[in-house]
Amino acid sequence: MKKIITLGEILLRLSTEVGKRLSQADQLALNYGGAETNVSVSLANFGYDVYFVSKVPDNPLGLAAERHLKMNGVRTEFLLKGGERLGTYYVESGVGARSAQVTYDRKHSSFTQIICEEIQFDNIFQDADLFHVTGITPALSPSLVELTLIALQKAKEKGVITSFDFNYRSKLWSHQEAAETIKRFLPYVDICFCGELDATYLLGIDKASESMENTDRLMFYYETIRKKYPNIQFFASTFRDVLSASTNTLQGNLFVDGALYQSKIYQIDHIVDRVGGGDAFVAGMLYGILELTSLKEAVTFATAASVLKHTVLGDCNTFSPEEIKTYANQVPGKIVR
Amino acid sequence: MKKIITLGEILLRLSTEVGKRLSQADQLALNYGGAETNVSVSLANFGYDVYFVSKVPDNPLGLAAERHLKMNGVRTEFLLKGGERLGTYYVESGVGARSAQVTYDRKHSSFTQIICEEIQFDNIFQDADLFHVTGITPALSPSLVELTLIALQKAKEKGVITSFDFNYRSKLWSHQEAAETIKRFLPYVDICFCGELDATYLLGIDKASESMENTDRLMFYYETIRKKYPNIQFFASTFRDVLSASTNTLQGNLFVDGALYQSKIYQIDHIVDRVGGGDAFVAGMLYGILELTSLKEAVTFATAASVLKHTVLGDCNTFSPEEIKTYANQVPGKIVR
Amino acid sequence: MKKIITLGEILLRLSTEVGKRLSQADQLALNYGGAETNVSVSLANFGYDVYFVSKVPDNPLGLAAERHLKMNGVRTEFLLKGGERLGTYYVESGVGARSAQVTYDRKHSSFTQIICEEIQFDNIFQDADLFHVTGITPALSPSLVELTLIALQKAKEKGVITSFDFNYRSKLWSHQEAAETIKRFLPYVDICFCGELDATYLLGIDKASESMENTDRLMFYYETIRKKYPNIQFFASTFRDVLSASTNTLQGNLFVDGALYQSKIYQIDHIVDRVGGGDAFVAGMLYGILELTSLKEAVTFATAASVLKHTVLGDCNTFSPEEIKTYANQVPGKIVR
Amino acid sequence: MKKIITLGEILLRLSTEVGKRLSQADQLALNYGGAETNVSVSLANFGYDVYFVSKVPDNPLGLAAERHLKMNGVRTEFLLKGGERLGTYYVESGVGARSAQVTYDRKHSSFTQIICEEIQFDNIFQDADLFHVTGITPALSPSLVELTLIALQKAKEKGVITSFDFNYRSKLWSHQEAAETIKRFLPYVDICFCGELDATYLLGIDKASESMENTDRLMFYYETIRKKYPNIQFFASTFRDVLSASTNTLQGNLFVDGALYQSKIYQIDHIVDRVGGGDAFVAGMLYGILELTSLKEAVTFATAASVLKHTVLGDCNTFSPEEIKTYANQVPGKIVR
Amino acid sequence: MKKIITLGEILLRLSTEVGKRLSQADQLALNYGGAETNVSVSLANFGYDVYFVSKVPDNPLGLAAERHLKMNGVRTEFLLKGGERLGTYYVESGVGARSAQVTYDRKHSSFTQIICEEIQFDNIFQDADLFHVTGITPALSPSLVELTLIALQKAKEKGVITSFDFNYRSKLWSHQEAAETIKRFLPYVDICFCGELDATYLLGIDKASESMENTDRLMFYYETIRKKYPNIQFFASTFRDVLSASTNTLQGNLFVDGALYQSKIYQIDHIVDRVGGGDAFVAGMLYGILELTSLKEAVTFATAASVLKHTVLGDCNTFSPEEIKTYANQVPGKIVR
Amino acid sequence: MKKIITLGEILLRLSTEVGKRLSQADQLALNYGGAETNVSVSLANFGYDVYFVSKVPDNPLGLAAERHLKMNGVRTEFLLKGGERLGTYYVESGVGARSAQVTYDRKHSSFTQIICEEIQFDNIFQDADLFHVTGITPALSPSLVELTLIALQKAKEKGVITSFDFNYRSKLWSHQEAAETIKRFLPYVDICFCGELDATYLLGIDKASESMENTDRLMFYYETIRKKYPNIQFFASTFRDVLSASTNTLQGNLFVDGALYQSKIYQIDHIVDRVGGGDAFVAGMLYGILELTSLKEAVTFATAASVLKHTVLGDCNTFSPEEIKTYANQVPGKIVR
Repeated sequence: MKKIITLGEILLRLSTEVGKRLSQADQLALNYGGAETNVSVSLANFGYDVYFVSKVPDNPLGLAAERHLKMNGVRTEFLLKGGERLGTYYVESGVGARSAQVTYDRKHSSFTQIICEEIQFDNIFQDADLFHVTGITPALSPSLVELTLIALQKAKEKGVITSFDFNYRSKLWSHQEAAETIKRFLPYVDICFCGELDATYLLGIDKASESMENTDRLMFYYETIRKKYPNIQFFASTFRDVLSASTNTLQGNLFVDGALYQSKIYQIDHIVDRVGGGDAFVAGMLYGILELTSLKEAVTFATAASVLKHTVLGDCNTFSPEEIKTYANQVPGKIVR
Repeated sequence: MKKIITLGEILLRLSTEVGKRLSQADQLALNYGGAETNVSVSLANFGYDVYFVSKVPDNPLGLAAERHLKMNGVRTEFLLKGGERLGTYYVESGVGARSAQVTYDRKHSSFTQIICEEIQFDNIFQDADLFHVTGITPALSPSLVELTLIALQKAKEKGVITSFDFNYRSKLWSHQEAAETIKRFLPYVDICFCGELDATYLLGIDKASESMENTDRLMFYYETIRKKYPNIQFFASTFRDVLSASTNTLQGNLFVDGALYQSKIYQIDHIVDRVGGGDAFVAGMLYGILELTSLKEAVTFATAASVLKHTVLGDCNTFSPEEIKTYANQVPGKIVR
Repeated sequence: MKKIITLGEILLRLSTEVGKRLSQADQLALNYGGAETNVSVSLANFGYDVYFVSKVPDNPLGLAAERHLKMNGVRTEFLLKGGERLGTYYVESGVGARSAQVTYDRKHSSFTQIICEEIQFDNIFQDADLFHVTGITPALSPSLVELTLIALQKAKEKGVITSFDFNYRSKLWSHQEAAETIKRFLPYVDICFCGELDATYLLGIDKASESMENTDRLMFYYETIRKKYPNIQFFASTFRDVLSASTNTLQGNLFVDGALYQSKIYQIDHIVDRVGGGDAFVAGMLYGILELTSLKEAVTFATAASVLKHTVLGDCNTFSPEEIKTYANQVPGKIVR
Repeated sequence: MKKIITLGEILLRLSTEVGKRLSQADQLALNYGGAETNVSVSLANFGYDVYFVSKVPDNPLGLAAERHLKMNGVRTEFLLKGGERLGTYYVESGVGARSAQVTYDRKHSSFTQIICEEIQFDNIFQDADLFHVTGITPALSPSLVELTLIALQKAKEKGVITSFDFNYRSKLWSHQEAAETIKRFLPYVDICFCGELDATYLLGIDKASESMENTDRLMFYYETIRKKYPNIQFFASTFRDVLSASTNTLQGNLFVDGALYQSKIYQIDHIVDRVGGGDAFVAGMLYGILELTSLKEAVTFATAASVLKHTVLGDCNTFSPEEIKTYANQVPGKIVR
Repeated sequence: MKKIITLGEILLRLSTEVGKRLSQADQLALNYGGAETNVSVSLANFGYDVYFVSKVPDNPLGLAAERHLKMNGVRTEFLLKGGERLGTYYVESGVGARSAQVTYDRKHSSFTQIICEEIQFDNIFQDADLFHVTGITPALSPSLVELTLIALQKAKEKGVITSFDFNYRSKLWSHQEAAETIKRFLPYVDICFCGELDATYLLGIDKASESMENTDRLMFYYETIRKKYPNIQFFASTFRDVLSASTNTLQGNLFVDGALYQSKIYQIDHIVDRVGGGDAFVAGMLYGILELTSLKEAVTFATAASVLKHTVLGDCNTFSPEEIKTYANQVPGKIVR
Repeated sequence: MKKIITLGEILLRLSTEVGKRLSQADQLALNYGGAETNVSVSLANFGYDVYFVSKVPDNPLGLAAERHLKMNGVRTEFLLKGGERLGTYYVESGVGARSAQVTYDRKHSSFTQIICEEIQFDNIFQDADLFHVTGITPALSPSLVELTLIALQKAKEKGVITSFDFNYRSKLWSHQEAAETIKRFLPYVDICFCGELDATYLLGIDKASESMENTDRLMFYYETIRKKYPNIQFFASTFRDVLSASTNTLQGNLFVDGALYQSKIYQIDHIVDRVGGGDAFVAGMLYGILELTSLKEAVTFATAASVLKHTVLGDCNTFSPEEIKTYANQVPGKIVR
C-alpha cells in the first residue's frame, strides 16, 4: 500500500438544503471539506495509506473533523490539535438558474496559525511515495508559504513524487502574490494541475489566439511552462462548460511528453453537489498516474471520478476504483440489483 | 424610500416534500403565500417601504403570518387582526411528468370577512407612491369587489400610481363575474398585467388569428385594450412554455406607448418551486418601471427575477436587485466563492 | 368490483435520501415493495378488490407490512403470519451519472418458508377474475416453484384469467433454472409480460437480426412464443432507453392477435424513483385489458401509469385511473389549481 | 368479530415538533384525529370490525383521511365523500411548564354539512353490536343533533348497545345548548362517559360537598343520574391530576350497579402526546366491557390503554390488547428483547 | 409604545439535536442568540419599540441575523453592516446527566470591530425610555469598554433609564479585568442584575457567612452595593438549583429600597433548552418594572417568563405578556383548546 | 497505548424516533451496535488500540459498519469481509410507561458463518494486553462456541488478560445450553461480568435468601463462584432499578479479593437511549481496572460512563475519560461555556 502525504486545511462545511437560501435556513447539513482534505479522502478510499498533515482546534469541532478523516480511512497521526478555531464555510446549493454561493468564514483558523517547527517533515516523508498540496495552503498565511516550500523541497530530497494544484482563489490573495509564490514552488513539482487562466494570469504567458481550438491553446501553454520547468512531467486540467447550476459538461486533459490525452466529454446532468468536483479529478488523476497502465485510462478514470462526485452531497468522493471504472466503461443509469 | 401599498390575502401554504403525494405525506412544510403577499415581499426585499393591507385571525397562525411579513421587511401597521380563519392551501410539488397540484381551503377566511369601514384609505395612501392589487382579491367576496374599487379610486385621487394584475382563477369566479368586475376597475389602472386569455375571455376582444406570431397577437390585444382604457400606460405579461413540471421557458413582455419590449427566452430547468413565479415577475416589473432607466432593462429585470424565484422553495422571492441584475447579465451556474 | 389475486413477497425497503450513499447514511426512509406487492397496490388504487397471498413474520415489521397493504386498500385476509423474517432491500437512489444501487437482504424470509398446505387456493380463487404472479416468486425457493405452478393451474381450472411477468433476476437464479421453471408455467398463462432478453436467454429463441427494427424484432419473438404457447393472448413489454439515472425514455408495447400496439415514446426527466416503474406498467396494462375499450388505449394507459410512478418516492403507484388518463392526454407540468 | 359503528368527524391534525411554537414552526407533522376517529382506530386495533360513519371532502385530504382509517383497519364503506373541507386543528405540543395549545380551524367542514338523508342507519346497524358517539358530534351543527338522536334511537331499535361520551367543549357550544341536547340523548344510552363537571354543569345536579372524597362525590353523581336514566348501565370516567404538561397522574373509574371499580393511580411521566388519551380510555373501556371477565379488569385495561397512548405521537392508540395487558400487569420500562 | 435601546452582539447559534454530540452531528439547527439580542427579542414581543445597536457582516449570515431580529419585531435601523464575521457558538444540548456544552467561535466578529465613531448615540437615545447592556459587550474588546461607558453616560444625560446585567463569563475576561471595568459603569446604572458571585468576586465584597440564609446573604450584598452606588434603584437576580440538565428549580429576586421581593420557587422539569433563560428573566423584569403595579408582580412575571423560555428551542422568548401572566397564575399543563 | 482485542458481532441498528412505533415509522435512524462492538468503541474513545475481530458482508452495509468502527478509532485489520448478511435489529425507543422494544433480525449473519480457520489468533494476540468477549458470541452458532473457547485459551497462553460478560439472552439460547457452554469458558477468565440471575440460573448456585440485602446476596454469589473458579480476579455488575422507561437508578458493583466496592446510586432521568448502557459499564470497568489507582475509583468511573451513555442516541459511548471523570465528580446539569 503506497504512502501518500497531504498538507492542507480541513474546513467545516455547513450547507443549506436544496431550494433554501442561507438567509432563510433553519437547518444546516454539516460536512467537512477543503481541497487537500478532499483529495486525501478520495485517495484513502482508493486504498492508499494517506497521512493528512494539518492542525485543528482542541474542541468538539476539531474532534469531529478528526473523526471524519478516520471514518474515511485517512491517517491522523500528523493532525495537530490546538490553535484558535476551525475554518468554516457555508454553502448555499445552486440549482438551475441560481449558482451555488459559498460564504467563507475561515480566517484565524488553527491551520493558518501553524508554525514550521510543529511539523517534522523528515519523519513524515519517511518511505512516502507521493506528496500533494494546493495553492490554497500558501494563500492562507506567510508562514504557510514557507511551510509549503519546505515541504516540497523535503519531499524532493526524500525522493517523493510531488503534486501541486494551482487552485487559485482570488478571495485569498492577489494574482501577483500568487504568481510570485507559486513560481518558487514549481521547480520542485512533478505533477501539476493548472489551466489557461493560471498560465496567463499567474505565469504570465501570453494569451494564445482565440482562433485556436481550446485543446491547441492548452497544449501551447503546457509546452511553454514545460520549457521553463522541465521537471514537471504531468500537466492536468479539465474543460468545464457550465450550462446551468444543474447541468455542466466536463472533459479531462492530461499532458505528458508533449502529447495531450483527453477523456470524452461527459454531460453531467442533475448535479447534486459540485463542490469538491475538482479535487475528485485530482485524486483520480494521481491514482491513474500511480496505478493505471495507460495515460488515456488515467485521464478517463480521473474525469469519471469527478463526474460521479457531482452525484453525492458533501465535498468528498467515496467511490471505489471499481465503481469508477464500471461507470467509465458503462452506460449510466441502470439500476444495479 | 418609496412607499408602496398592497391589498390582498396572506395564505398559509402547506407543501409536501418532492416526490411525496399529499395523500401520503406525514410532514408538511409551512410557508406563506398569496399573490399580493408575494409581490409585497419581493418589493420589500427590493428596499421599498411596503405596507400590506389585510386581515388575519387573532390566533397563532395569524401571528405567524405577521411574523413572516415582518421578517421580510413588510410593514404590518395596516394588518388587521380578527375574523374566522386563515385561508390555507396545500401544494403537492410537481416534478417531471407530474404537475404540481394545489388544493385550496381558503373559504371563510378573515380577509374575505373584511368590511370597508375597517380600512382607512385616506391614511393609508398618504404619501404613497404605488398601489398594487390583483384580480384574486375581488374574486373572494362581493364586499372585496367594493373595497378594491374604492382603493383604486382613492389611490388615483391621491395621485398614487396603480397596478393591477388580472390573475384570473376559474375556481374563484366565472368569466362573466370577473369580466364585469374588472371592467369597473380598469379606468383607474396605470400598470396592467394581463395576457391573451384575459383579453379574449374577460375583455371580450376577438381572438387574433392563430397564423399571427405570439408577439404580434399580444400587441394587437394591448392596442385594443389601450384604445378603450387610454389611462393604462404599461401592459406586461409573460410567455411560458411548459415542457414538463421541471422544465419551462419564460419570456417577459412589456408594452408601452405602442412598443413591445421583450426579454430573451430563459430556459428554466430544474424548477424547484414554480408557485409565486408570476408574482416575482410583477414585483420585478414594478421595480423596473420605478427605478430602471430603460424599458428593456425593466422587462429583463422582471423576467430574471421570476426565473430566480423558480429556484427556491416557497412563494416568496428574496433576491436582491443586485443578485437579479447579476443573474440577468451573467452566465448562470458558476459557484460564487 | 372485480376480484384480483396476487401471490408474492412483500419486502421492506430502506432507502437513502438523494445524494447520500448507503455507506454514509444515518437515516433511511422506510417503504414496502416487491413486484407483486406493487402491482397489488396499483390495482387496489384502481378500485379492484385485490387479495394479496403471502406470508410475513409475526412481529412489528410484519404488522407494518400489513398496515401498508391495508392503507392502500389491498385485502389481507390471505396474508399469513409466521416464519423467520421479512425480506429486506436497501436502495441507494441513483441520480444523473450514478445508477441506483439495490442491496438485497431477502434470504430466509417468511415468504420463502411458506408451504403449499398453508394456502387454500380453492377458497382464494372463488369468484376471482384475475390472478397475477411474477418470475421472482418461483425464484425464491423450490417449494415456491410448486406453489406458483399449483396456483396457475388452479386459477385456470376456476376460469380465472392468469397474468405472468417474467421479471428475471440473475441474482436469484440462473438462466437455466429460470428457463426450465418458466416453461412449466407458460401453458397456463393468458397475459404474459416479457421482452427480447427473456425470449432469447430463457425461451431459447434465436436472436433476431440486429438490422431489424426494435419493433420488428419484438413482434418476431412474440410470434414465435405464441406458436409454442397459443394460450397466451396478450404479450406486453416496454422499451426503455436509459440516458442517465435521472432521464429515461419509455415506450409501451402490447401484442395481441399478431398486431403490435404502441404508446408514444415518453421522455421521463427528473426521475424521482425508478424502482417499481415496471410494476406500475404491469398494473396499468391489466387495468387497460380489463376496462378499456381499445388496445391502443390500454398500452397508453399502462405506459402513462409507469411514467407517473417515476415521479414519486417508493415502489408504489397511487395514481387513480383519472389522474393517469388526464396525464396521458395532456401537456404535462401545468399547476393544477 | 363483533361489529361496531361510530359516528363522528375525522380531523386533520397538524402539530409542531416538541419545543417549537406554532408561530415559529416551518414544518408540521400531519396526523388525523377526532374523538370518534380515535375510538374507532383503537377498537379496530383491538380486532373489531369497526365502521366509521362520516363525510370528508372529495380531494387529496379526504383521500388521506380515508387511507389513515384503512391503514388502521377501520372500514370506510360508510365514509361519504363531498362537501366543502376537512376540519383541521393545530397542536403546539406542551412540555413541562408550557401547556399544549390547540388551535381549531374546523368550521364549515364536510361533516358538519352532512344531511340526515345521506345516512342509511337501517343498513349500517344491521348485525351491529355496539354504537359509539360523543358530545362533539351534535355540537357541530343543528342537523348533527338530529342525526345523533336518530342514530341512538335506531341503534336501540336494532338492539345495538349504545355508548355516549359527553366530551363537552366550551368552544363549540354553551352549557345550556349542550345540556338541552344531551338530555334528549341519555334515554337511549347504555354506556355513559361523564364526570363531575358534566354532572353539575350540564345535568344540573347540585355540587356534592367539597369535604367528600373524590370517589364518594363521583358515586353520588352517578347514583343521581342513574335514578333519572335507569337505562344507563355503565358510567365511566378518569381522575387526572396535571402536575405539568409532561407529568400527570391518571386513575380510571367504572360504576356499575351502584358499585365503583377503580384502577390504581398511574404516574404518567415524560408525556409524549396527551391528545387522544381520553379516547384511548373510552375504547379500552368498551373492550373491557365487551370482552373481559371482571369489571376491575375492564377499568384497569382502559386506564392502561390510556396511559400507553401518552407515549406515542398522534391521537391514535395502536397498542394491541396483549400489549396493554402486559403493561397493566408489569413493571414498566424494561427493554423487551 | 415605549422606546428601548440595547447594545450588544447577535450571535449565530448552531445546535445539535437532543441526544446527539457535536462530534457526531451531521445536522445543526440554526438560531440566533446573544444576551442583549435575547433581551431585545423578548421586549419586542412584549410590545416595545426596541432598537438593537450592533454590527453584522455584510453577507448572507448578517442578512439572516437581521431577518431574525425583524421577524421578532426588533428595529434594525441602527444595525451596522460590515466587518469580518458573525460571532458563532455551538450548543450540544444537555439532557439528564449530561450538561449542555457551549463551544464558542466568536472572536474577530464584526461587533468586536465596531468603532465608537460609527454609533451616533445622540440620535439613538432621542426620546428613548430605557437602555440595556450586559457585561458581555465590554468583555469583547477594549473599544467596546469605551463604547459601553459612553452609551451609559449618554443615556443618563438624555434621561434614559439604564439597565446593566453583569453576565460575567470567565472565558472572555478575568475577574480583575471585569471588576475594573464594571466599576466604571455602575455609577450610571439604575437597574442592576447581579448575584452573590458578582458581589464577591467582582465587587470585592466579603463573602457573607454560610450560616446565613441565601436570602439574607443576598440582601446583605445588595445593601452593601447600594451604599457605594446609591444611584442603583433596582437589584435583581435568580436562585437556580440544578438538579440535572433536565430539571432545575428557579426563584426570582428583586431588591428595591431595602426590601426583597421574591417569586415562588418554580420546578422546571423537562427542560427543552436552558440557554437564554437568564435573558428572559431580565426582559421580564424590565417589563415588570416599567408596566406592572407591584414589585411582587414584577418578580413573578420575570420568573415565569424565564420558566416558559425553558420550554422552547432557541435562545429567544416569544411569549406574550398575556401568556406569561396566565402561566404565572395558573396550574400548568392543561391542554388549551 | 495498550492493545485490546475483542471478538463479536457488529449489528446494524435501525431505530424509530421517540414517540413513534415501529409499525408506524417511515424513517429509521441508522446506527451500529452489538455488545462487543460497543465495548470496542468505548475503549477506543478511551485511547486504546482496539482491534475488533469479526466478519461483515462484502456489500455497502458491511462497508458502512467498517466506516463506523474506523470513525470511532477501532482498528479493522481483523475485520473479515464475506458471508451472507449483516445482522440487524430494530429498536422502538421506550419512553415513560412504554418499554423499549427490540426486534431482532440477526440470524444467518456473516459473523455466525465465520469458521475457525479464518482467524489467526497467534497473530492477533501478539503483544495484546486484554481480550474481551461476551456470552452473545457463543450463543450465535456452535462454531462460535469453539471459536470463543479457542480465543480464551490462546489469550491465556499469550499472557493476555481475559474479560467475559455473561450477557445472557434468552432469545438466543436456553439456560441449559448457556450454562454448559459458559462453564467451559470460565477457567480462562480473569474479569467476569455477571449478576444474580447468571449465578442462579446458569451456574446453578442456590438462590440466596430474599431476606438478605442485595449487596450481601451478590457477595455470596461471587464468593461461591470464586471458590470454583479461583482464576477469576474481578467480578462486576450493576444494580438497576427501572422506575419507568425514562427513569432508572443505577449502581455499580466490583468484587475483588472478597471485598465489594460500590458506586453511589445514580438517578438516571430523561433517558435518551438505554441500549448499550451495560456495555458502557463494561468498558468503563476495564478502563478502571487497567488505569485507575483505586477499585472504588474504577467502579465509580464505570458507573458514571454508563450513566452518561443513557444521554446519547445510539449504542455507542463516545465520552472521553476526562468527561466521565468530570461528571463523576460534579453536580450535573450546569451549562459548560
